[in-house]
Amino acid sequence: MAQEKTLHDLFTETLKDIYYAEKQILRALPKMAKSAQSEQLKMAFRTHQEQTEGQIERLEQVFEMLGKAPRGKHCPAIVGIIDEGKEIMEDFAGTDALDPGLLAGAQAVEHYEIARYGTLKTWAAQLGLTDAVPLLEATLKEEKETDALLTRLAGADVNRKAA
Amino acid sequence: MAQEKTLHDLFTETLKDIYYAEKQILRALPKMAKSAQSEQLKMAFRTHQEQTEGQIERLEQVFEMLGKAPRGKHCPAIVGIIDEGKEIMEDFAGTDALDPGLLAGAQAVEHYEIARYGTLKTWAAQLGLTDAVPLLEATLKEEKETDALLTRLAGADVNRKAA
Repeated sequence: MAQEKTLHDLFTETLKDIYYAEKQILRALPKMAKSAQSEQLKMAFRTHQEQTEGQIERLEQVFEMLGKAPRGKHCPAIVGIIDEGKEIMEDFAGTDALDPGLLAGAQAVEHYEIARYGTLKTWAAQLGLTDAVPLLEATLKEEKETDALLTRLAGADVNRKAA
Repeated sequence: MAQEKTLHDLFTETLKDIYYAEKQILRALPKMAKSAQSEQLKMAFRTHQEQTEGQIERLEQVFEMLGKAPRGKHCPAIVGIIDEGKEIMEDFAGTDALDPGLLAGAQAVEHYEIARYGTLKTWAAQLGLTDAVPLLEATLKEEKETDALLTRLAGADVNRKAA
């Protein structure tokens, strides 16, 4: 009989999910930076691209702590979120509503990450993976800061032109 | 020549997106409540089901303010998030990790909603849709409270058993 699945298995599955998601995000960000009209928004996407590279490295360190090779697992959630962003980029290309649309897509991405890293941090603590906790916490903090920056941009210049 | 798309169009599109998402969430919640093992988690899902009905009514009021019939638009993001939740429900059925998995899925749903309602509220204010702002704000507040409740449950009893 197969052994019963545990929280440790769930942690590993979710780690693969966010690893896949981060790689998809890393591919999407340069396109978003290129499309953005506001310099501030372009810069926010470029900064987050660099952060994402660091976040992927942190995930690889967590895989190493588990004694596993880093491996992604298809994540329909991030694919759906990114596809919606692409659709907006196409539908609103060349209009003043493009930047607000890009911002909205980026915030949906950030919130997906905030949910996943919050969950992983809690589970790591419960599983006694004490070395993983600060790594997951560091990324969670960055995602929340990025979301807060995007909220500021959404409330400021970027959208005023479109309204 | 077609008229250029505006922030008003983007607002309407995003309203349709979250209207569709809320309806999907309303369908998923009874299954999640049924699957949950902890009474606290069952109750959290049932309470959120009632809240979701109210949130759908608020969205219908916003559609009315725009002079439009309420209409959903396929939202790949929420479909992806719910599909991941279903997969966890199947893979971890009958194990102590089921409740943590349900909690994680529900928090991903909440964060998607937090992102969308935050965006819609900002845009409503920028578009001068002043009557829509408090409705969107009320739902945003509920989603944040639900997420905070789920965070408390995730850190407490629900997961301890699984670890």
